Amino acid sequence: MKTRIGVLGPEGTYSEKAALIWSEGMPSTVLVYFKDFDGVLQAVEEGELDYGIVPLENSLEGAVTVVNDLLLRLNVVIVGEVNVPVRHCLVGQGESEIKIILSHPQALAQCRQFIREHYPGAETRTTGSTSHAARLAQEFGEMAAIADAGAAERYGLRVLARDVQDVRENVTRFIVAGRQIPGATGKDKTSLVIHLAKDRPGALYSILQEFAQRSINLTRIESRPSRRGLGDYYFYIDLEGHQDNSVVLDALEKIREKAGMVKVLGSYPRDS
Amino acid sequence: MKTRIGVLGPEGTYSEKAALIWSEGMPSTVLVYFKDFDGVLQAVEEGELDYGIVPLENSLEGAVTVVNDLLLRLNVVIVGEVNVPVRHCLVGQGESEIKIILSHPQALAQCRQFIREHYPGAETRTTGSTSHAARLAQEFGEMAAIADAGAAERYGLRVLARDVQDVRENVTRFIVAGRQIPGATGKDKTSLVIHLAKDRPGALYSILQEFAQRSINLTRIESRPSRRGLGDYYFYIDLEGHQDNSVVLDALEKIREKAGMVKVLGSYPRDS
Repeated sequence: MKTRIGVLGPEGTYSEKAALIWSEGMPSTVLVYFKDFDGVLQAVEEGELDYGIVPLENSLEGAVTVVNDLLLRLNVVIVGEVNVPVRHCLVGQGESEIKIILSHPQALAQCRQFIREHYPGAETRTTGSTSHAARLAQEFGEMAAIADAGAAERYGLRVLARDVQDVRENVTRFIVAGRQIPGATGKDKTSLVIHLAKDRPGALYSILQEFAQRSINLTRIESRPSRRGLGDYYFYIDLEGHQDNSVVLDALEKIREKAGMVKVLGSYPRDS
Repeated sequence: MKTRIGVLGPEGTYSEKAALIWSEGMPSTVLVYFKDFDGVLQAVEEGELDYGIVPLENSLEGAVTVVNDLLLRLNVVIVGEVNVPVRHCLVGQGESEIKIILSHPQALAQCRQFIREHYPGAETRTTGSTSHAARLAQEFGEMAAIADAGAAERYGLRVLARDVQDVRENVTRFIVAGRQIPGATGKDKTSLVIHLAKDRPGALYSILQEFAQRSINLTRIESRPSRRGLGDYYFYIDLEGHQDNSVVLDALEKIREKAGMVKVLGSYPRDS
C-alpha cells in the first residue's frame, strides 16, 4: 500500500514542494491534490489520507489563520514540520500588457510592495493557490501570477521577475498532519493551543511562568482571536521537548489547572 | 478652520461610520476620503489631516495587519478609539444571478461560511473597501457586495441578506490617529509595541512580569511577525492607564531595559 499524502493543488504549489522534501526517502508515496486546506485536513481526519501537509505560518505574514483554526477544531495531530524557503516569481506569457495579477492571498500580501511599484495599475485577484493562479495565466494573456518558478515550468510560462517578495528572507513553515503522535526522538517540538478567558489579563503571565520556571524554551507564541469578542484569545505556543518528557508533562498538568482550555496539537521531530 | 478627519472611502465605509460616532458634537468637521489606510495615516503624519480613523482589530479576524504595521512605522500617535458593531449585508441590484461577490478582504473573510453555503459557485473578488464594492455592484448587475446597510442606501442597491457575518457578535475597533498624545482623563488606555528578539523565549514572560507585579491590566496582547524570520515577533500590548500615570511610567522604564525596542503608540480615553 502506498502512503497517501495530501497537499493543496493543482500541481506546482509550495505545499507540494514541502511534501516532496518531507517524504524524500520514503519508499512508496502518492500525492493527492485538494482545492483547499480544509479538504486536506478533513481527509486526514477521515482516514482517506495518511498525511496532509499544510502551511502553518510564514515569516512575513504570520499565521495562516485558516490552518490554525482547523488544527484547533479537527481531530488530527501534528507529526512533523518542514521549513520551505519561499522565492516568489511573477510568471506569465509575457506577450501582452499585464492587467491582472493573480495569486493566493498570502502570496499577494507578501509581494505588496513589488506590485505597487511595478504594476500600480494592475488589478489583483485572489485564487485558491499559487499554482491555480499560474494555470489561469496560461489561459489568459493579460493575467500574470505570483508563484514558484517550478509552477512556471509546469504550466509553460515565462518567469517575468524573480524574488518579488517584499523581504528577501521569506520562509514558510509547513506542518505534517496525521492521526498518531510519534515517539520522542530527543530533538522534538510540542505545539499547544491555550484559551485565555477575557478579562483575565494576568493569565498569560501565569501560564508562561510554568514554562519559564522549568527552563522550557518557547519557539513560537502567537495570539488568535477566539471569535467570542475583542480581547478574548487563543494562544498558539510551540515549545522545545516532547509531550512524553517528564518536565513538559509536569508543565502541561499545571497549565491545565490554570487555563480555560488546553489542546496539545502534537509532538514531532524538529526541522533544524 | 474645520477639523479635517480622514477615512477610507468612498462614502459609506465602516470607517466613515466610526468617524461620525467619534466626532459627534465636535463643532466643525469635514470628512476626507482616501483609497487606502496608508493614505489616511500618511496624511496625518504630514499634517494634511488633523485626525485619521482606521480599523485596528476585529473580533473575528483579529488584527488589521497593515494598520498595525503602519502605526509601528509612522510618526503618528493614537489619540482615541471607537468600537463599531459590524453587521454585514449582501447588497446588489437583485435582478440577475449573482456571479461575483465583492468586498474588502476582511469583510469577505468574516462572511466565508455564508458565501460557501449560499453562493458556492460565486467568484469572490477583493476591493479596497466595502463601499467601493457597493459602488461596483451599482454598475454591474451580476456582482453583489458585502457591505454595511448604509452603503446599499447610498448607492441605490437592495439589501439581499442581512447579518451575513459568520458570527453574530462582530465588533471592529477603530483608532483615531493624531499627532499629540492627549492628557489623562482617569479612564485611559495606553498602546505599546515591543520587539522581542528571536531565541529569547523567556523575554515575553519577563516583560509581562513588570505589568503583573504592578497590577496593570492588559486588554490586548497580540503577536505580529517582525518580518525578520520565524519566531521573531512584535507584541502589540494595550494596557489600562495613561503613560503619565506613575505606575505605568515605572513599568515602561523597566521594560525599556529588558526589550529590544519599545514604542508607545499612544495614550487615549477608553471607549467603554
